Amino acid sequence: MSMTKSKLRVYDDTRALFHLPDGVIYLDGNSLGALPLGVAERVNRVITTEWGNELIRAWNSAGWYAQPRHVGDRIARLIGAEAGSVMVGDTLSLKVYQALAAALDMNASRKVVLSDTGNFPTDLYMAEGLIATLGRGHQLRLVAPEEIEAALSEEIAVLYITEVDYRTGRRHDMAKLTAKAHALGIVTVWDLAHSAGALPVDLAGSGADFAAGCTYKYINAGPGAPAFLYVAPRHADTARAALSGWMGHAKPFAFELAYVAAGGIERMRVGTPPVLAMAALEASLDIWDRVDIAEVRARSLALGDLLIAEVERRCPSLKLVTPRAHERRGSQVSFAFDGGYAAMQALIARGVIGDFRAPDIMRFGITPLYIGESEVMRAAEIIEEVIAGEVWRRPEYQVVNAVT
Amino acid sequence: MSMTKSKLRVYDDTRALFHLPDGVIYLDGNSLGALPLGVAERVNRVITTEWGNELIRAWNSAGWYAQPRHVGDRIARLIGAEAGSVMVGDTLSLKVYQALAAALDMNASRKVVLSDTGNFPTDLYMAEGLIATLGRGHQLRLVAPEEIEAALSEEIAVLYITEVDYRTGRRHDMAKLTAKAHALGIVTVWDLAHSAGALPVDLAGSGADFAAGCTYKYINAGPGAPAFLYVAPRHADTARAALSGWMGHAKPFAFELAYVAAGGIERMRVGTPPVLAMAALEASLDIWDRVDIAEVRARSLALGDLLIAEVERRCPSLKLVTPRAHERRGSQVSFAFDGGYAAMQALIARGVIGDFRAPDIMRFGITPLYIGESEVMRAAEIIEEVIAGEVWRRPEYQVVNAVT
Repeated sequence: MSMTKSKLRVYDDTRALFHLPDGVIYLDGNSLGALPLGVAERVNRVITTEWGNELIRAWNSAGWYAQPRHVGDRIARLIGAEAGSVMVGDTLSLKVYQALAAALDMNASRKVVLSDTGNFPTDLYMAEGLIATLGRGHQLRLVAPEEIEAALSEEIAVLYITEVDYRTGRRHDMAKLTAKAHALGIVTVWDLAHSAGALPVDLAGSGADFAAGCTYKYINAGPGAPAFLYVAPRHADTARAALSGWMGHAKPFAFELAYVAAGGIERMRVGTPPVLAMAALEASLDIWDRVDIAEVRARSLALGDLLIAEVERRCPSLKLVTPRAHERRGSQVSFAFDGGYAAMQALIARGVIGDFRAPDIMRFGITPLYIGESEVMRAAEIIEEVIAGEVWRRPEYQVVNAVT
Repeated sequence: MSMTKSKLRVYDDTRALFHLPDGVIYLDGNSLGALPLGVAERVNRVITTEWGNELIRAWNSAGWYAQPRHVGDRIARLIGAEAGSVMVGDTLSLKVYQALAAALDMNASRKVVLSDTGNFPTDLYMAEGLIATLGRGHQLRLVAPEEIEAALSEEIAVLYITEVDYRTGRRHDMAKLTAKAHALGIVTVWDLAHSAGALPVDLAGSGADFAAGCTYKYINAGPGAPAFLYVAPRHADTARAALSGWMGHAKPFAFELAYVAAGGIERMRVGTPPVLAMAALEASLDIWDRVDIAEVRARSLALGDLLIAEVERRCPSLKLVTPRAHERRGSQVSFAFDGGYAAMQALIARGVIGDFRAPDIMRFGITPLYIGESEVMRAAEIIEEVIAGEVWRRPEYQVVNAVT
């Protein structure tokens, strides 16, 4: 844990807690967060001291067994969740699957899962797979994000959406949609991939039923860091655990032949937790424990406004697709541009790392823990050079790589 | 990678490649393998150089995206699998779930999943969960391990068993059972938790359909290390991916709204791979690439024979539950003893680390990469002290901990 729990000022104190390579302006923390300096030592300690010396005993002596729940409680703070309502593990794909399976079970007489075309594809794919496994005639209905509210009806079993759109940065109104959904008997599943660590979330206050998120984006826990699942306490003892692994059993070490779900959020554990990845997550949370998410949000909006103003002034051919209204925006700024893929390659070659999302979206993530005004201003200058200076048209930037 | 690919002699060369704490005889590598010395540096490099400096670019530049398949090919060598047939990721619970879901889909007219009471409980629990989700009247039928062969019939859809029993160390005959299963139209799913890195497995030669295993036991990849899934090449392009995440999509970075399964084993990927854990796994495989699994097996059997002979001679009250016949034994030796829990606590207090499995099984894992004759002889002396000397009766060893 951190030596002191005194508060850290966002950027002024936190920038020095991250490693960022020279010559890079990193605007892709919404895809993979930057490296907190405390991670390497923490992971090394778990490898050498806990695994190396304690060996199997570390499940007790180092607290590995209870860690997924304890870490869940640290994440709960960031997303307005009740203590004991968040479990860490697996990947976001699996956590939305668990949530949707439980939600559909709670509303078995209805057959429609409502989502939107701005949801991240893996959520839709996992739902397709679940629906096929269920084989009970469920339908995944997709509407445009702005049509979600009007599409809520008593036909819908589950509202299954991502709060902040991964391409546009458009933000849904969680409290309003959840209230309307509940009035119509709809269970809600929220994906917080672009919310957790990006902006204040109020799961308990909004009455959300289920939520899931990842920790490798704004939380900065590293590539492939574990995901988390939230189950509202009123559902936790009854929600069906579709992925009923031994760690979610009421008595995992009794090795009984029949499954009996543990009480509460424990039932949403599946297999053996990823201890090394959990160490990196703990080190990243050492920073989050000491910052005010409201301050992060205020800085994010100001930096986003600055980036929008500077890019629009310098590059009129870039069309803003992120809502201008603060309450409808996440923590990224996205522009549509026909040459977006090539332009992003040119930017990355110049040290401005954002990313591209098909068909034509250039994304810039705003992560105030390690990005400030000077970085945003410098990025805007380089964007101007690439776009207005037509650097993006050079042949070397037209080659499409396999993965971005 | 290792500096040289020259062969290593088992124990004589490999013992020095592991960290083992002073005063410990570690006979629990069948639960959590010991720490290979190369892990800490490898993981540190991935954290500082790849994540820290390359950031999001490392998905391409450091090969993170392709790693689960490349590492799968390294594991394939150990289990007699074809190149391109093994995918790494998630946990064993999830991998047996994927395998069983695909297997049931291939044999949809039959409704019985056959397993045995020696299967590891999470396999049974995951099957229960899948059967409930399917809701198509499937039945999980459990028989005693020795009754499996006789229980095969044309009523069975899937034979779903663990090759080596986690409690007794009893080994099923994979080739024989698979052949008989196939003759009856049964699809096979093998759990290799106590096989991979423990003994030669011949998936291709035995004609197995699906298999899954973990890497934190005999492979020594660390606590919560990722699992793997094998799909026979003849099924890989048609097996249904029930956990249909974006990484298993034919074009993951096209971000299409509808799921289209990738060809081959790639469809069994789910979400973002655990990159830090994968680094530890790669370091552990640097040793496995250079040893001969047949030599590991020969040493394991000899050490097991020695432990059995010494314990039976010194402690007649311990009843061997592991088969004596080499071909029917995995790489552990287990004894039933009414005071087993207390005795194991007393042994651990004296540096002999094995483990206990309810109701009365004392397990000792044989891991010849870092356990040799002198360790086995010393362990036998301490077992004698604890059992024959009645040390296990002391009150301090009767207290049951939450997790063992």
